[in-house]
Amino acid sequence: MASPLASEPHGTLAASYDDVAAAAARLDGIVNRTPVLTSRTLDARTGASVFCKAENFQRTGAFKIRGAYNALSQLTPAQRKRGVLTYSSGNHAQAVALAGRLLDIPATIIMPTDAPAVKLAATRGYGAEIIPYDREETTREALAQRIAEERGLPIIPPYDHPHIVAGQGTAARELFEETGPLDLLLVCCGGGGLLSGSALSAKALAPACRVVGVEPAQADDATRSFHTGRLHTVHNPDTIADGARTPSLGTVTFPLVLHYVDDMVAVSEEAIRRAMFFFWQRMKVIVEPTGALALAALLDGVVSAPGARIGVLISGGNVDLRYALRLFEAVETS
Amino acid sequence: MASPLASEPHGTLAASYDDVAAAAARLDGIVNRTPVLTSRTLDARTGASVFCKAENFQRTGAFKIRGAYNALSQLTPAQRKRGVLTYSSGNHAQAVALAGRLLDIPATIIMPTDAPAVKLAATRGYGAEIIPYDREETTREALAQRIAEERGLPIIPPYDHPHIVAGQGTAARELFEETGPLDLLLVCCGGGGLLSGSALSAKALAPACRVVGVEPAQADDATRSFHTGRLHTVHNPDTIADGARTPSLGTVTFPLVLHYVDDMVAVSEEAIRRAMFFFWQRMKVIVEPTGALALAALLDGVVSAPGARIGVLISGGNVDLRYALRLFEAVETS
Repeated sequence: MASPLASEPHGTLAASYDDVAAAAARLDGIVNRTPVLTSRTLDARTGASVFCKAENFQRTGAFKIRGAYNALSQLTPAQRKRGVLTYSSGNHAQAVALAGRLLDIPATIIMPTDAPAVKLAATRGYGAEIIPYDREETTREALAQRIAEERGLPIIPPYDHPHIVAGQGTAARELFEETGPLDLLLVCCGGGGLLSGSALSAKALAPACRVVGVEPAQADDATRSFHTGRLHTVHNPDTIADGARTPSLGTVTFPLVLHYVDDMVAVSEEAIRRAMFFFWQRMKVIVEPTGALALAALLDGVVSAPGARIGVLISGGNVDLRYALRLFEAVETS
Repeated sequence: MASPLASEPHGTLAASYDDVAAAAARLDGIVNRTPVLTSRTLDARTGASVFCKAENFQRTGAFKIRGAYNALSQLTPAQRKRGVLTYSSGNHAQAVALAGRLLDIPATIIMPTDAPAVKLAATRGYGAEIIPYDREETTREALAQRIAEERGLPIIPPYDHPHIVAGQGTAARELFEETGPLDLLLVCCGGGGLLSGSALSAKALAPACRVVGVEPAQADDATRSFHTGRLHTVHNPDTIADGARTPSLGTVTFPLVLHYVDDMVAVSEEAIRRAMFFFWQRMKVIVEPTGALALAALLDGVVSAPGARIGVLISGGNVDLRYALRLFEAVETS
């Protein structure tokens, strides 16, 4: 692999809380210190005290800028000059594009030709070069590998890298700084970057806090991997939580999840829609399907902790408004 | 008029900043201290530093609980026992219903038969009695007057009362406490309760701050009243900003607006839609059309203050999601 950012060998723990703290120093003044939202209705409905860390208010609309900036800011001067490469149809693309602009590092993003026009435009708007690819003809990983070798560019992967994990862990770190110890922290899980980073912060800042990852039942590879200790994968899972459509945990994130996360649970598509609707209708915040996973576990009773102080990580708010409305139609009439 | 809450005679100033401060003490621990939102994109687009007071995160989804609770909490024990009466198809109905529940005061709300089912349900959910009326057959004021006399109940009007004005002024008070002095404060205007209360706070806490009220051009009665010094009215104005469909300023609010407000401006329906879309799409917060009036004046260039520190009051976030999407269709394709 051409990437000088190649990750640690499988089996070792590639990131620690010290890495999260170092990332927080790099991100200070760069990313938004997002607010922590509470709701009397939510507390009444769950019988708990719930604190929602609102990364939908983060720059680019999702937590991904934390990891991307942390990774890009650690490149050597020579690497910075040549630029970076990544692949993403979602929030990581915009994050790398913005981090590149902020650090004056050329960013090249491999995006599917059928990515939403609004995401293509936003990524291009940050000054990134976009290489379109046809999902039918090639995989993005294979294409990334080829271009990385041709151009000598490091690949900034969406989750499976220690610098990405450490950056993502700063969101939970801010949450604990604001709320103090919590009994339970619920975090959505796709490739496990946010989940493993959050777990690092939790175990350092609130050792008694249980950390539970939440996946769509339709894409429960990480839940199965966690419970069996063996890496499971899913292919093109059919879930509205597009940030959790990743095929599996990675060589960096799987050991971290096994070691630091207390449990993994899965929620139905209906539960995701209902949680998302609650955020919009009752709490007046726009949350994307993946961002509603953690709350879905709580509202649907998959996780129950009466009397507890519970942290809920909202990962992002980038969703087509018209699409969201279609999701709500089933909820509103039920 | 049967109401012991009858307002001061026309021409005198019925409320002062001392009343706002006293209201803040009554509301402490009762209403949410709502967050102040900022956006790098918004600052870049306006060339200013913009601070948005998010009353869409207030209890019941709008600022109205501030005035309602302040008014109800000052009733005598005998009045509390009998209960209160009000008329509203919107946010004031839910506010009086919740304030009544919190203070154990029976609340009766006159609501039009064609009010949105969700608002009727929310108001009933707080335990209020709802008296439906047909807009074709009677005016709500006439009906309220009759029922107030029959039942000996005080009317809690939606805006034209010193206690309502003082309560609404606490939102801007919190804003100044958090941001320090501002150069400009933009506030939406319907009946002028929020605007005159905000102006009281501004002139006391940031005397150099210009206070500008914002109305829909389709319902610009207060703007015309302000510029002519004579009370203008509109009837059933055709604006999406339903909170600004009030026919005119009141006998309490008009003198306060004339005395404390620096200017009034009006914005197009298209500007309201665009500002609302900006809140949803870029800032990830759900704001109702009336709540987007203040930002509309800024984004549309009706008000311009490069380099200034600007406060923007978001009045509320109660809007049917499907209806909002229809409003955005023209924006997204433009």
